[in-house]
Parts: sequence; structure tokens; C-alpha cells
Amino acid sequence: MAEEQKIPYKIYLTEDEMPKAWYNMRSDMKVKPAPLLNPGTGQPLTAEELTPIFCEELVKQELDDDTAFIEIPQEIRDFYKMFRPSPLVRAYCLEEKLKTPAKIYYKFEGNNTSGSHKLNSAIAQAYYAKKQGLKGVTTETGAGQWGTALSMACAYLGLDCKVYMVKVSYEQKPFRREVMRTYGASVVPSPSDTTEIGRKILAEFPGTTGSLGCAISEAVEVATKNPGYRYVLGSVLNQVLLHQSVIGLETKIALDKYGIKPDIIIGCAGGGSNLGGLIAPFMGEKLRGEADYRIIAVEPASCPSFTRGTFAYDFCDTGMICPLAKMYTLGSSFIPSANHAGGLRFHGMSSTLSQLYHDGYMEATSVEQTEVFEAAEFFARTEGILPAPESSHAIRVAIDEAKKCAETGEEKTIVFGLTGTGYFDLVAYQKYNDGEMSDYIPTDEEIAASVAKLPKVEG
Amino acid sequence: MAEEQKIPYKIYLTEDEMPKAWYNMRSDMKVKPAPLLNPGTGQPLTAEELTPIFCEELVKQELDDDTAFIEIPQEIRDFYKMFRPSPLVRAYCLEEKLKTPAKIYYKFEGNNTSGSHKLNSAIAQAYYAKKQGLKGVTTETGAGQWGTALSMACAYLGLDCKVYMVKVSYEQKPFRREVMRTYGASVVPSPSDTTEIGRKILAEFPGTTGSLGCAISEAVEVATKNPGYRYVLGSVLNQVLLHQSVIGLETKIALDKYGIKPDIIIGCAGGGSNLGGLIAPFMGEKLRGEADYRIIAVEPASCPSFTRGTFAYDFCDTGMICPLAKMYTLGSSFIPSANHAGGLRFHGMSSTLSQLYHDGYMEATSVEQTEVFEAAEFFARTEGILPAPESSHAIRVAIDEAKKCAETGEEKTIVFGLTGTGYFDLVAYQKYNDGEMSDYIPTDEEIAASVAKLPKVEG
Repeated sequence: MAEEQKIPYKIYLTEDEMPKAWYNMRSDMKVKPAPLLNPGTGQPLTAEELTPIFCEELVKQELDDDTAFIEIPQEIRDFYKMFRPSPLVRAYCLEEKLKTPAKIYYKFEGNNTSGSHKLNSAIAQAYYAKKQGLKGVTTETGAGQWGTALSMACAYLGLDCKVYMVKVSYEQKPFRREVMRTYGASVVPSPSDTTEIGRKILAEFPGTTGSLGCAISEAVEVATKNPGYRYVLGSVLNQVLLHQSVIGLETKIALDKYGIKPDIIIGCAGGGSNLGGLIAPFMGEKLRGEADYRIIAVEPASCPSFTRGTFAYDFCDTGMICPLAKMYTLGSSFIPSANHAGGLRFHGMSSTLSQLYHDGYMEATSVEQTEVFEAAEFFARTEGILPAPESSHAIRVAIDEAKKCAETGEEKTIVFGLTGTGYFDLVAYQKYNDGEMSDYIPTDEEIAASVAKLPKVEG
Repeated sequence: MAEEQKIPYKIYLTEDEMPKAWYNMRSDMKVKPAPLLNPGTGQPLTAEELTPIFCEELVKQELDDDTAFIEIPQEIRDFYKMFRPSPLVRAYCLEEKLKTPAKIYYKFEGNNTSGSHKLNSAIAQAYYAKKQGLKGVTTETGAGQWGTALSMACAYLGLDCKVYMVKVSYEQKPFRREVMRTYGASVVPSPSDTTEIGRKILAEFPGTTGSLGCAISEAVEVATKNPGYRYVLGSVLNQVLLHQSVIGLETKIALDKYGIKPDIIIGCAGGGSNLGGLIAPFMGEKLRGEADYRIIAVEPASCPSFTRGTFAYDFCDTGMICPLAKMYTLGSSFIPSANHAGGLRFHGMSSTLSQLYHDGYMEATSVEQTEVFEAAEFFARTEGILPAPESSHAIRVAIDEAKKCAETGEEKTIVFGLTGTGYFDLVAYQKYNDGEMSDYIPTDEEIAASVAKLPKVEG
């Protein structure tokens, strides 16, 4: 490696350089994301209708399409300082191994105990709940990163935290559960007999191992039926993308420090929390016509909402008690194949990102999981970080783009989001190491079957 | 928290500020650590006798009691940049929760995939093996941090890596094993039938679940019998403490930047790799009479080599094929109680640290594991990092010292080593969460029984 690199391996901001406000992408969108609808009336939801579910301040943020910058409260900035700034890493070793003229950077969000970027929004949501004088919050978790992040934030603030964990994960990921318990959260396998919707689902499907949509239904029910509780969600929502903009803002400040302008920005996409956060300030420039970037969303071929879904109103949950959101969706009854490892298994996609994709501001591509794990292993051995399966979707496409540069000789600057670490995904790594991992691409018929069940709404 | 903290939550050095040489504590010791002895002749081992086991350059470092600073090769410094500098964290939240006037700092070495400081020496040892033109290295691992670190270093350099993993860990920590496999290492449960000593032990104790000392014997045998291989060890040795001095050097540079002088320095101690590294430059000042610090080694009450061991020559392994080292030891046949969680289970202690302790340059204390996990949980909820059980020994004593300051009003500055994360220790956390964790303190008779088997050597 060159002795005289001007750009360090890791760019850290000083605490003074850290963002003091979140950036709201919607403020620069000419076509705003479609509003959430009341599933009963088909009308846009008002703040009054949302406050029984979400904290007041978060409802404001959810509905605010206009304010560009929203100040990050000092208490949240103090908490951020425990695990932020996250490093923007120049992947010198990866570049060398790929023999590419491309310059590769990744924003690494895995250096905290939740193991992912989820903590950025968890502390914000917990903070507003605390400020409102609530007793606690409820949520669901699948792979477990969001539940862990929320339990950490609640432990810090002294809030009660009830997590509905998809049953199959609860049983297969006992360590994730223990981390949450160590942070004082109560963790319930979903579906459970603690809720009406859970009992209904259990009666209808006795052997079910649960789904994210079902766990959401249970968590919402508990929040709305227990005084002093609200529901919080780790992705999809506008407020979450707002909080996650801290990822992109830090990335942009770090790049600007060294006068670097990315050509391609790549993020994995499940509900959109990481991608929406990473691209926020860059998309802002693009929306305002100040700069152009290629922005690529990467999703699993087994759950391809952007690339094979329908842009329509749909429920966010299986129990159909949540608001309707207009998004690219595979239908709320779609469940990814059992062989799918890790997260990125939500049937829909953030309304904001869906609108931006629909309007041509970003691309999307899907990748199969064996090629994802191949990239993950290569990255681990080269850059020394064991990546989460979710993050490895972005790694796969970043490597492919860098290889194209090796062919063409183009010195493109590629930035991707390394959302987290894979310490709790070793069952999947073991499958890959043993050559037992397989791919599954849903058929057109399967997708059509769940899309056929979309609610009938004008929008 | 105060708005105008002058000292940031995390002090990061720039790459230019990172140490360019390791510091060799022995150079400032008036009484040098006793030399390694040939168990056959009882005579000090020569470089010639050591080179069939260790790499040539590492033998030099092992025997060098005089050179104060040894340059870190550029290739190792490049690798260090992937995960170093590690942050020196001001534990503002912990101070606030403890209502203590003490100022608490911790050097956090867990932000890399091996989950601990072990990578500092792993890359150095692998680098010298590669430079010598070797095919590969062998080692043992217990809790798995060292094996993971070595497999990462070998993957980076393209070296073969054979890890003998204590059978009970191999079976109970399948995820650790998978991380090593993901990095391309071959992992063998020890005792195994792949070595003479393994077969002998299996014949003698058919149901044994192995021990660190036994795995060392197997790894050494394989290294010495296979051309192109050498044995590497993650603790105890002088060379390891040398490489780990990067921890203390970074800590000192960070503290000096802000004009901070610690009063108390605390580290957990198993074989001594972390403690010896953390205290190195501070001990240097103490040895040279330039400054004074209270230095505290913390060990588990279930494996108390400093506090209840004997200062004598002993074998480093169970198979008694390794050199003899003079150290505080419980006897090489001592095996910590089965209820002991995590590492810090080696029967002996670094010769260098043993000599320093013997000469009164440092203190030692032992703590029981339930109080260790209580501190671990408190720390996790307060500072947001799930600590390794090993590291939590230092946390326990740091908290206790900070509490004393709260009583006396003294504004002491406490620095402790947070060696790693607990993501692979959740079986132990679960026990603690379920109230099923117990303590065990070996009886005087137990210790006397294994000490009685010490080899008879003048020294």
C-alpha cells in the first residue's frame, strides 16, 4: 500500500463536526410521498389519529414534509457521542485485492452493541417517549438488531421496553434475546397469547413460527391498549429516515473534508432505514439540481419489493390494523422463503424511497444470497470486519461496480453503507461455509397471489 | 451532562499520532524476568533451541531484555489502521450514574471482529511468519478470541492457520468456530487424535473436554513436526506483551494530548497480554522513577494465580513439552472450576508481570464472577457496550474504586482496559440473567495439590 496516502484509512469527525440537525429529504421532494391512510375511512391520517399509536413529537416529524432541518436535541447528541461519529472507511485493502482503480469507501455503523445503525433512531424515539412522560414503548423485532437497539436506548433512559420477537428468531437466535434481556427488555415470542391478534393468529395457524407483520400487529395492540405506552418502529417510517439521516450527513461532512465527490452510492434496502439515511443529503443535492449521483438500492432476490413489487397502498402489518402506506410492496401476506437468511424480509418499502424510486431518482437491483455471502466472506478476509448479511447485499454490488471499473479503467468513487456486523448470523455463515446455502427466487405467480390481496384504495 | 466538556467522549488519535514502535518494558526493569528454561537440561533456552518452535524474529523479541523501542513494520502499521487507533473513552455516563467525582476512562479494544485486543499481537506474529517464508502457523484457543484474531491475520496475509480449540469451547461456542472457519482457519477440537499428545491424553482420560494447556501441547507438536510451520501464542510471552504495548502507548498519547495523568490503572489478567500492554509506558515511567501510578491486576477468584499462586518455574502446558517459565502459578495441572465463564483461566502469568508484581510495582486483586457480571450488566446499560466477561473484571474494580471516590470526595483519574465485547459469551449472560450463575473459590488444599506437582528447578 502507498506510504503517502493523503486520505486516512478511517475518517472520524470530531465531536464539533458532528451534525446538530437531522435532514428531512421530503422537504426537497417536488412530489411528496403519499400520506398514510386510515384503513377504515381511506382518508389521510391526522395527527390526532396517530397520537394514540406514536409519541406526539414523532407524529409531528412523521407528517412534516416541509422543514428541511430538525434540530437533534442535546440529550440525543450526547447519547450519539457514545457510539458516533462512525468511521467512514477507505477500503484500501479491498481496492488492492480487486486490483481496481475505483476508490471505495464505506460508512461503518456496526461499532455499537446493537450491531447496526438502528440505534440512531432507537434513541431518538425513546427520548421523545421519555420526554412525553410515558412509561414505556413496544415494538417488534425480526433479526433482532432493532429490538437490541431499542432495549439499549430504553435502558439508558429508564423506560420499560416490550419487544415482540418473531417466534422463529426467538428460538433460533437465543443470544439476541439474551442481549435484550441484559438491557432489561421483556422479550415475547410472537405470535403470543398476550394479545387478541396473537391469539387469533395462533387459533388460525396453530404451528406458525410468526412473521414481522404479525409481530407489528401485536406490538401496536399492546401500545394502544396500555396507558403510558406507545409503539415504535425501526424502519419504513418517515421519522426513521429522518433520524437515520445522521449517517449520510456524517458521510458527506467526512467526504467534503477531503474534497471527495462520490459517483455511486450503494445501500441495502429492507424497509429503507439505512438506505434512506445514507443517501439523504446526497439525494437532497440531487433533488435541488445541485449535484448528480448514481444511487443504488440493493435488495434480496427472495424479497424484491422495489424490483418486482407494485407501487400501491398496502398494510404495513399482517394483522391489518396499521395505517395504509403507499409503497412498493409484494403484498402484506408475502412471506420470504424459509431459506432466506438475515433481515431485509419486509414486504414493503419506505414511502419516501418508493416515491423517489418511482420518480427516477434512484435505481434498484436484487441479488441472491449465495453471491451475497461470497462477497461477505471476501470482505471479511480482506477488510477484517465480519459483515451482517443485510450489509453484505451492498458489499456485493459495490464489489461488482469496482470490478467494472477494473475492466474499464474508470476511477469511480464508490460509497456504500456497511450497516452492521454478523456476530449473530453465524448459523447462516455456517450454512455457507458448509456449502449448504441455497437461493430462492419467488415465482411471478407467488408474487401475483399476494399482490392480488392488496387493499382497494384510491391513491 | 455538561454542555462544555473539554474532553470528548472518545479520544481518537490521528493516524500520524499512532505509535511507530512498540515499547519493551523489560528494558527498564532492574530485575529482569527470569529466562525460559529447557525442561530437559534446566538451562536457559537459547535462540537456537527456540527457533524450531517460534519464528526467528519473534525469538529475538522474546529474548531481548534491553532494546526499549522496537519499530513496528510498515505492513503491520497498515493493518493496525484497519482497526486502530482504538478509542480512549471518557465514561461520562458511568460517572454520572455512580455520582462519583472520579474521572473514568477506558481504552476500548473490542471494535474489531476478533472482539478483543488479541489482534494486536496476532498480526505481528503472522507477519513475521510470512516474512520468514513459512506456510502457516498453529495455535490453541480457549474462549476463542485469540483463535479468531489469528485466523483474521492469516486470512489477510494468505497463511495457513491451524487452531486447536479446547473441546468444551468447540462444542459450546459453535459460532466462534464458524467465525474462524469464515476466515479460512481449520479448527480442531482438542484433545484430538491428530497428535501424539492428543492420543495419549484421550487414552488416559477418555471423556475429557480438554484444557488450554492440553491444546497448547497439541499445537506445539504440530508446529514442530510439520516443515514450514511454527507455533504462536496469544498471551504470557514477552513478545506478546511487546506487541500489546500499542494499547498503552496509544492510551498515553491520548491522555497526554489533554494533559491528563491517571492515578489508577486497572486491567484484567489471565496470562497478562492485555494488562502488560495497557500498563507498559506507565510502568516504564514508574520503573525509571519519573512518575508513580497505582496499577491493579484483576483476576478471577476461581483462577487466582497472582493472589494465591506460587512464584516458581512451571510448565506453560499440560503435556509438559513447553519451556519452563518462572511465574506466579497455580500449577500446570490446575483447572478452574467448570462454572467459570469466559477466559482468564490460565494457570500461570506472564513472567514479566510476575517479576513486576514480585518486586512491588503493581497490586493484584481477585473478584468473583457474579459480582463481575453485575458490573458487566450495569456497564452495558450505562455505557452501551456489552463487555466480555474478561474485561468485566476490570470494570468491577474500576466501579469499586470510583465508588470509594464518591465516599471520600477524591477526584481520582481511573483508566481501565476494556479488552473486548461479550457477543460470544451470551450463554454466561443468560445464566446471570436467569439467576443461575454461581461462584467458586478453590480451596487451599486444591491449590496446594497442583502446586505440589511443580517441576523441581532452581531459579
